[in-house]
Amino acid sequence: MAIRIGYLGPAGTFTEEAMCLYTSGNEHYEKLEFSSIPEMIYSIGTKIDEAVVPFENSIEGSVNVTLDLLIHESMAMIKKELVLPVNQNLLAKKPFSLEEIEIVYSHPQALYQCRRFLHERLPKALWRETESTAEAARIVAKSEKPWAAVGHRRLGELYGLLIVAENIQDYKNNVTRFIILSHEDSLPTGFDRTSVVFATENKPGSLYRVLGFFARENLNLTKIESRPSRKALGEYVFLLEVEGHRDDEVLKKVLMEVQNNTTYFKILGSYPRWQEGYPPAGGDRKDPNL
Amino acid sequence: MAIRIGYLGPAGTFTEEAMCLYTSGNEHYEKLEFSSIPEMIYSIGTKIDEAVVPFENSIEGSVNVTLDLLIHESMAMIKKELVLPVNQNLLAKKPFSLEEIEIVYSHPQALYQCRRFLHERLPKALWRETESTAEAARIVAKSEKPWAAVGHRRLGELYGLLIVAENIQDYKNNVTRFIILSHEDSLPTGFDRTSVVFATENKPGSLYRVLGFFARENLNLTKIESRPSRKALGEYVFLLEVEGHRDDEVLKKVLMEVQNNTTYFKILGSYPRWQEGYPPAGGDRKDPNL
Repeated sequence: MAIRIGYLGPAGTFTEEAMCLYTSGNEHYEKLEFSSIPEMIYSIGTKIDEAVVPFENSIEGSVNVTLDLLIHESMAMIKKELVLPVNQNLLAKKPFSLEEIEIVYSHPQALYQCRRFLHERLPKALWRETESTAEAARIVAKSEKPWAAVGHRRLGELYGLLIVAENIQDYKNNVTRFIILSHEDSLPTGFDRTSVVFATENKPGSLYRVLGFFARENLNLTKIESRPSRKALGEYVFLLEVEGHRDDEVLKKVLMEVQNNTTYFKILGSYPRWQEGYPPAGGDRKDPNL
Repeated sequence: MAIRIGYLGPAGTFTEEAMCLYTSGNEHYEKLEFSSIPEMIYSIGTKIDEAVVPFENSIEGSVNVTLDLLIHESMAMIKKELVLPVNQNLLAKKPFSLEEIEIVYSHPQALYQCRRFLHERLPKALWRETESTAEAARIVAKSEKPWAAVGHRRLGELYGLLIVAENIQDYKNNVTRFIILSHEDSLPTGFDRTSVVFATENKPGSLYRVLGFFARENLNLTKIESRPSRKALGEYVFLLEVEGHRDDEVLKKVLMEVQNNTTYFKILGSYPRWQEGYPPAGGDRKDPNL
């Protein structure tokens, strides 16, 4: 039976790339394109079985819309994670010099990732924000004007654009972490990560107390993030990620303690930690830039 | 001598509103409009003496671009905070019914703040992201088509638009916290807040240890947030806000301990906590919605 998987389109975005990597070698996947993250997450369990969503970028931080939907509005669980390098390129219809370019189009996060490059090398170019990097490429491909788009090199092939500058992101260690959402998470593999969200009473030391449960057992926290509770300014829900599976004996006990000492608690999922070299050699991973 | 203050334009944005409230009654302010937050923050100390920037919204969370510039790229300090309600409205050129509206324009954050309203009441309308709520109003005002903009009611007067739906934000407790940046912070008032950023060693329990310094003295943390270190995925810089002034005896001692136990430490400033009712009656605060 086909597994229906949603991804953020159109073709040529980094999310589509992550989806291709995740599903490569498995012919049971039926791929459905979505145009917004909320629409896609709302559809898990009805139109689709799984969804690939961006969760965190090494430079720009968490994708808040994804995080907030998981905290406040969805029952979906995290089943898997993938970490992919983000290489941004400047694409144009003709071989314009950088000085000639008048407008540069892209998704706001892609523009910010190349902030310094654009500021120094295209100081006169106006920035125009688009809904996706592919939308930017589409706009640039339709015009004869000295415009450029910022995005994945594959957009060049898809929209008939030239690469006028390569790897223009300001930080070379730019990677994005994607997650696969589904109605359930994964079984233990011995190399897992668990994501939980919780809220504490609004009084001195309450977060400190919760972190103490993990510190006592020497559990390694790999991420902590606060998001608004949406009740009042200064009240937060915390996302915490820890090494281990929620069925591991020690972590299970700690999570029980956390649940008993918080005003809100939810496990987003346990899933295998990303490892370099996945999928194994011989898989369908052709582009070394992925 | 004039104090040159920067704000995020154009007129009619919430930031301009915050700037008007902050400077009201003081004629020494010379107001300079900027079109981007980075450009404005880079200009503190050269083109301008102070800047008004959005820092945090009760629903959407921190304004990451502001936070990251303060962490990584600026020496500016926080001198003051202001907390203003955000009331979003749907504005159009003619009295269209909600069903007729085909495209809705606004800044992405304003669109997200009205996500549920737009999803339920204008299910067929396409979303188009703009650089500011004022830019959205300008686009809508230029066309005869059934388009609408989301933004402050004052945009109606400025661009000749009608309010077709009022207070459309999904959460009614929607407030934005603005900060005033300058080359120095404020003197103690007895009702202050202090913002610091720091990074810890990447090993179990290191954040827990730092929070312990505050918990031991019963100091109330009002915000904790993690941002990418920009060195590697999973390494963070923390923003922490605490009640008190950095010159208060107890807090001063704790901050010294924090500095001695972190790999990076910077005080963003101590400043008076926002109080309802400021400015005092008789000030220039005419709009009760402010």
